[in-house]
Amino acid sequence: MSELAQRALEGHVASGARIIRWLEDGERAGIEALKELYPKSGRAHLVGITGPPGAGKSTLVDALIAENRSRGRRVAVVAIDPSSPFSGGAILGDRVRMQRHATDPDVFIRSMATRGQLGGLSRSTFEATAVLDAMGYDIVMVETVGVGQDELEVVDLAHTTLVVNVPGLGDDIQAIKAGILEVGDVFVLNKADRSGADDTERALLTMLHLRGVIEGVWAPPLLKTVAVREEGIPELVDACDAHRADLEASGALEGAAATRGEHFFAELLRDFAVEKIIASATARAFYPKLLESVRAREIDPYTAAEQLVSAFEPNFDD
Amino acid sequence: MSELAQRALEGHVASGARIIRWLEDGERAGIEALKELYPKSGRAHLVGITGPPGAGKSTLVDALIAENRSRGRRVAVVAIDPSSPFSGGAILGDRVRMQRHATDPDVFIRSMATRGQLGGLSRSTFEATAVLDAMGYDIVMVETVGVGQDELEVVDLAHTTLVVNVPGLGDDIQAIKAGILEVGDVFVLNKADRSGADDTERALLTMLHLRGVIEGVWAPPLLKTVAVREEGIPELVDACDAHRADLEASGALEGAAATRGEHFFAELLRDFAVEKIIASATARAFYPKLLESVRAREIDPYTAAEQLVSAFEPNFDD
Repeated sequence: MSELAQRALEGHVASGARIIRWLEDGERAGIEALKELYPKSGRAHLVGITGPPGAGKSTLVDALIAENRSRGRRVAVVAIDPSSPFSGGAILGDRVRMQRHATDPDVFIRSMATRGQLGGLSRSTFEATAVLDAMGYDIVMVETVGVGQDELEVVDLAHTTLVVNVPGLGDDIQAIKAGILEVGDVFVLNKADRSGADDTERALLTMLHLRGVIEGVWAPPLLKTVAVREEGIPELVDACDAHRADLEASGALEGAAATRGEHFFAELLRDFAVEKIIASATARAFYPKLLESVRAREIDPYTAAEQLVSAFEPNFDD
Repeated sequence: MSELAQRALEGHVASGARIIRWLEDGERAGIEALKELYPKSGRAHLVGITGPPGAGKSTLVDALIAENRSRGRRVAVVAIDPSSPFSGGAILGDRVRMQRHATDPDVFIRSMATRGQLGGLSRSTFEATAVLDAMGYDIVMVETVGVGQDELEVVDLAHTTLVVNVPGLGDDIQAIKAGILEVGDVFVLNKADRSGADDTERALLTMLHLRGVIEGVWAPPLLKTVAVREEGIPELVDACDAHRADLEASGALEGAAATRGEHFFAELLRDFAVEKIIASATARAFYPKLLESVRAREIDPYTAAEQLVSAFEPNFDD
């Protein structure tokens, strides 16, 4: 094992951070390190946190860090930020709220941009969580704005998904909530001291009821919090713990890990396949020529892609 | 040319709708039809509409349809809805607001789910717009909730991107707006009769000013609308027209079409490459075996993907 991977496994923060950065940048050394770390992952509790903008997710994550720390757990957070497509930088927004944990060596917080990564958001988030998992963090949280397809994939890959709601948002947001309602394991009504909280609570309970209650299957609870005052946070952490215990008891935790691996494999396969094809075809000056024809509309993109892929033949040994 | 593609080219709505549905379902016949239609596309004005939930985008689109119709234009709308990952159905939400146009044969409205499509949202949206373009619609609008990575890709692919804002949304939403601010060609402050409109207008103008004004380069205007009362809509359509004219004059329209083709080609290449690899490897019982090893964590996903891809060798004729 390389020294860097070894140090990351021992929980050395700077080593893990460097591997994650390499992975984001698509550097080969990051992939080599993750290959070494991957077999050591699989122990952390992966918690996805999603919900509409304005629901107070960052404040909630901040409170969850504090509560989990008070229970003696090491905590990592991957916060996915909508990013600027041109500058490539993440908008840190209210990440600053979590800064009080910056000096705690057992808390790791990392913002990821939703743009410009090799292989997309889902792959780089998976990679970061696998590294943090192998580094020995007990809880790895993934926070996302949660309305796009990629964001849904990210929360799908968590063991426990928290869906954060808030009183008094408009109809559009209700519609979005309906989209992520079905992936939620634990529901949170944050800012529960606001007017309109009772109406929203009733609406959410109705939606949860419509989802149906099945004997022996986890019934997602709804918890009320006021994250800025840390109200309801211990109960929320209890609910997350209970969901993890339920997954463990039912054997679903093992299945989830297998599914995560399969999903990741499929993504890598896409990336590696197209990388190889483009590299080979570029070396033969075939790719740039084809690309030029596509740009000039001399050939349609379907025919061009088919032509290129058809030039590759498998050569299996077994 | 197939009869179906021919009828779609003549603007026959049911034929076009069928091709779009086939494409969404990943049916081969859809691809064959689009291959025929693609060379006939490239005439429509592609307008992307994005902005945070609650900004009134659907109402605005409804008003834009009416105004464009009054100018004698045929209009198509692809509305991208956050969808339910389990049921696979799109949440139609307030699409109903556009129903007044349902009986107008020169208006085509289609909702697309953000889930479960072969090749992802970006590919299926591109495919739908290419079909509608070839069908002869003058304006093809793509409406999205616009915070995820896929949504940004979708608006990137439009000729003219409208970024819709609204007074009085929270800090989180401002952060999101900053992310899409740089892709906007025309900015809209909708619900401009609401309190706080002046503050939001000032904030937006500051952000636009920060973007900088360059001599001879399109300076994105900010227009105020009250979409429910159709106020400010003619001016907004004028601004979209002016942006298109600017693109045409600068030659950027041609470059945008080439970039759209290239982007689409790259996406298809990814999809086709992985399809071929999986099909070939499955036929040899190699893929299921490898997948099982990944699920059982006997092999890490990187090594597995590399193994599989390395079995493919190019065989270029040229």
